[in-house]
Amino acid sequence: LQDFRQQWLSDSLLFNGLACKAPSMVTSDDFSFTGFRAAADTNNPLGIGIIPGFAGVNYPALNTQGLSLAKFNYAKGGLVPPHTHPRASEVITVLKGEVHVGFVDTAGKLFAAKLKTGDFFLFPVGLVHFQLNVGSGHAVTVSVLNAQNPGVQLMASALFGASPEIKDEVLSRAFGIKDDMTKMIKKGFMPA
Amino acid sequence: LQDFRQQWLSDSLLFNGLACKAPSMVTSDDFSFTGFRAAADTNNPLGIGIIPGFAGVNYPALNTQGLSLAKFNYAKGGLVPPHTHPRASEVITVLKGEVHVGFVDTAGKLFAAKLKTGDFFLFPVGLVHFQLNVGSGHAVTVSVLNAQNPGVQLMASALFGASPEIKDEVLSRAFGIKDDMTKMIKKGFMPA
Amino acid sequence: LQDFRQQWLSDSLLFNGLACKAPSMVTSDDFSFTGFRAAADTNNPLGIGIIPGFAGVNYPALNTQGLSLAKFNYAKGGLVPPHTHPRASEVITVLKGEVHVGFVDTAGKLFAAKLKTGDFFLFPVGLVHFQLNVGSGHAVTVSVLNAQNPGVQLMASALFGASPEIKDEVLSRAFGIKDDMTKMIKKGFMPA
Amino acid sequence: LQDFRQQWLSDSLLFNGLACKAPSMVTSDDFSFTGFRAAADTNNPLGIGIIPGFAGVNYPALNTQGLSLAKFNYAKGGLVPPHTHPRASEVITVLKGEVHVGFVDTAGKLFAAKLKTGDFFLFPVGLVHFQLNVGSGHAVTVSVLNAQNPGVQLMASALFGASPEIKDEVLSRAFGIKDDMTKMIKKGFMPA
Amino acid sequence: LQDFRQQWLSDSLLFNGLACKAPSMVTSDDFSFTGFRAAADTNNPLGIGIIPGFAGVNYPALNTQGLSLAKFNYAKGGLVPPHTHPRASEVITVLKGEVHVGFVDTAGKLFAAKLKTGDFFLFPVGLVHFQLNVGSGHAVTVSVLNAQNPGVQLMASALFGASPEIKDEVLSRAFGIKDDMTKMIKKGFMPA
Amino acid sequence: LQDFRQQWLSDSLLFNGLACKAPSMVTSDDFSFTGFRAAADTNNPLGIGIIPGFAGVNYPALNTQGLSLAKFNYAKGGLVPPHTHPRASEVITVLKGEVHVGFVDTAGKLFAAKLKTGDFFLFPVGLVHFQLNVGSGHAVTVSVLNAQNPGVQLMASALFGASPEIKDEVLSRAFGIKDDMTKMIKKGFMPA
Repeated sequence: LQDFRQQWLSDSLLFNGLACKAPSMVTSDDFSFTGFRAAADTNNPLGIGIIPGFAGVNYPALNTQGLSLAKFNYAKGGLVPPHTHPRASEVITVLKGEVHVGFVDTAGKLFAAKLKTGDFFLFPVGLVHFQLNVGSGHAVTVSVLNAQNPGVQLMASALFGASPEIKDEVLSRAFGIKDDMTKMIKKGFMPA
Repeated sequence: LQDFRQQWLSDSLLFNGLACKAPSMVTSDDFSFTGFRAAADTNNPLGIGIIPGFAGVNYPALNTQGLSLAKFNYAKGGLVPPHTHPRASEVITVLKGEVHVGFVDTAGKLFAAKLKTGDFFLFPVGLVHFQLNVGSGHAVTVSVLNAQNPGVQLMASALFGASPEIKDEVLSRAFGIKDDMTKMIKKGFMPA
Repeated sequence: LQDFRQQWLSDSLLFNGLACKAPSMVTSDDFSFTGFRAAADTNNPLGIGIIPGFAGVNYPALNTQGLSLAKFNYAKGGLVPPHTHPRASEVITVLKGEVHVGFVDTAGKLFAAKLKTGDFFLFPVGLVHFQLNVGSGHAVTVSVLNAQNPGVQLMASALFGASPEIKDEVLSRAFGIKDDMTKMIKKGFMPA
Repeated sequence: LQDFRQQWLSDSLLFNGLACKAPSMVTSDDFSFTGFRAAADTNNPLGIGIIPGFAGVNYPALNTQGLSLAKFNYAKGGLVPPHTHPRASEVITVLKGEVHVGFVDTAGKLFAAKLKTGDFFLFPVGLVHFQLNVGSGHAVTVSVLNAQNPGVQLMASALFGASPEIKDEVLSRAFGIKDDMTKMIKKGFMPA
Repeated sequence: LQDFRQQWLSDSLLFNGLACKAPSMVTSDDFSFTGFRAAADTNNPLGIGIIPGFAGVNYPALNTQGLSLAKFNYAKGGLVPPHTHPRASEVITVLKGEVHVGFVDTAGKLFAAKLKTGDFFLFPVGLVHFQLNVGSGHAVTVSVLNAQNPGVQLMASALFGASPEIKDEVLSRAFGIKDDMTKMIKKGFMPA
Repeated sequence: LQDFRQQWLSDSLLFNGLACKAPSMVTSDDFSFTGFRAAADTNNPLGIGIIPGFAGVNYPALNTQGLSLAKFNYAKGGLVPPHTHPRASEVITVLKGEVHVGFVDTAGKLFAAKLKTGDFFLFPVGLVHFQLNVGSGHAVTVSVLNAQNPGVQLMASALFGASPEIKDEVLSRAFGIKDDMTKMIKKGFMPA
């Protein structure tokens, strides 16, 4: 309803009506985002580091624009495991390295590709997808999502790591495995 | 743009611009839907039968209304395994029996309840959810989804039954299991 | 912008920005709706009882979902008189009995049907429609409307029972009746 | 998706996908609308003449703009009887004369005013409203509606003049009148 | 979400969540707008006076309706210079006089017309357009825009009168002029 | 309404209803975009080359996603002159070099910044903005716009190079220059 609405970063992210800066106090810095100059740490089992560019976190100019950003650093072999964004499509581009990406459509068909620097790929809204660094060194990707708060649900942990737990029976029958196996997979997602 | 648009059922469901009946040819029958008088067969491993009420399949009056319907018949113990709708929220109601339902939010929290006849439950858009008949006999539920073509992705088969296959490595590391186990689960989703 | 927004029920329904529960305080009960287990009293001239399932009244999980619910109990011959919903289409289903339903389109054509248990019917947005119990006993219907606050305008009382009154001349000429008749009909809608 | 889409006027107004002119063939005339230079005949019982300015009728530049126009000429005492637009709000302005306008909200409250030349009034979407020329001579109003095809339902004729007829019982009980009266009002809306 | 939302006029126009009147306090006056009975002063270099009809300024009933109004008075030769509305299409009508109007599409084509009293013209969203009184006396136009806060950017002053200044180089090269000329045009837009 | 709609590239870009590939014929290549591996020629007066990534041109997977891409190559000093996108906001990122970017809001305030590799900047919908390579060598930027067909209007050429021409008087008075100067600037935009 105005040219832009500039929110203050605050603790109260729970509320919809983010306060706006008075226009006279908005500066050019509010429209610039330099957070991706940094590299995120990839020293973890998946070999992945992530930096968000979100209206509600560190890039307030995106408020009301229906867009959000994310940068991934990948160690060699780094994996962003299968996940969904319940409220956004995603366009991903490779800034460095070679990345294998893919999504599965509702008919069960896998669409996958090996992207090189400068390439783009589209993940349609809500469909499960993943990224794997298949190059010989580090990799970097940047994603633009068409929602202010796209949400992310890592499928393995949502199912086997939910709290409270999903009944073993539900998971065992869904995956065609025995309850022992279900319990074992669950253990991997328990807080240490 | 008109009071209603009444599509002809046809083979060409691939195209967006569904042809409309001339208003003078539309009758009251076009707005009635009697497809849920039937009961769907539940004689299968999951114990589940489904009848759709979709604009593009059997209830053309829903065209452009942003709504779709689905009826589930459950054998004793019948399970609708964890799945997502990439483009819709869902309101489910129990017409018969007792049904355990649940969804997991993006923070990994499970919201679950045991519903009785006449109860409703909401599954927010894009989040993984499931239904399990926990009563002593058959059960029946009806769902209303707030999209004309909500889509459905059964997570276990989307991941382990995709075609072409998702690389073992991606699934093994995501679920914290060995490649042998991944291959075994995949087998369960292969066409006989 | 979040998975869901959970409002507190409060007296201040006038305001758009319903306060949200902190996610950590939301429970499974917030997504369940058991209000339709009850039967509404039909001991009134129209033979109709209604129970709402509204975000702003008794089912807060519907907040921001663009959906609302309503259950009708009908005595034998119970009538929901002609009315419009200015902001929603409606899908109605019969849970018990036989119900004659109909709407009129903008060309003046009546679309009507006698629905049996399990049948559905669509009332397009804003068009005048009605329901009449034509079975031999009580009847029950449940409606889903595709708006959070669909509104309802009973046409006879909106026109002849408005306060302040609509000028007699406007109504007499619109309906082709004499002012005496207009005054008489108005009397029927006056508070006792 | 383009600067504008320019439809051809054709007989096939039933279909959603109106053909577009090639941009190179669009001229300034396509954006001009001179249809309101004329005055509509008011020699009828209600004393009302209407000229539309609709994308699908005579002003193709409005295609995809979510707007439509209507001009009313009023004889002395001319009445636009109570009606609804199921898909649009309306802003009305008086170009000549004095016009009494009003709408009823869903709580049954009448909001009415006597407008003079240059005044505006808003009718919220879907609510029943009317206009009555209360000046000493002719009057002219122009309305802008925020939908391409707003629809119009004159309430008296929709209820008592529907075809096929709405059952007498439904109307008699809704208006609190006897079936004889219902039959008599219906007669006034029958084609001569 | 309600029939209408009625904001209080206040100093705090910066905030999105405009407070609403309690429905019981809303009156018919809230839906009437008489601000265009006045004539705006045109005693200025461009020969133009403007009166807004905005939800956030003087016509609160437009809140949430996606509409705004503007009335222009033109002295003989009065010019509304080329400008854009970044968030709305505009329908303009001539109430008095003869007005030359035009817009340029993204292919660089000018669409222009000389409008007479009662004529309408459409300016598609975001495209640069202008109005010039070419009649022998005063003129009056009224515009309806399809957004609550359409915004306006006068192109000459946005480019040459921005504060802080746009670098001379950017403007000189864009317009194909020398820096001296750029500096001279800039001077015309400096505050006296 | 489906997971994705895959258009065929064709000559008939004028029509809204782009034909869709049958899902069974869609391949992973349809979701990949490698068009930005190339570098666009910058050997022109502005020192700018552009490669689009548009649903209707070379990246069909973007159809219905509300997104479009553009890559700019800048020679040293390369300038993208002041322009608007009538139907989209834009997020720009620098892949190489140092770029001065800015936009002017509707209050005439300039928001500008010097971006380095990896930085982002937001241009709100419809506002005039520009980019200038201020580094010591070539530069590269990539933009994501939140519309399938955002449109672009270069302001200097839209005003002084429109065809047919905008009257000298309109431009001279808008920019505060003499008609001679207007004619001279116009000449710079005439086809050779």
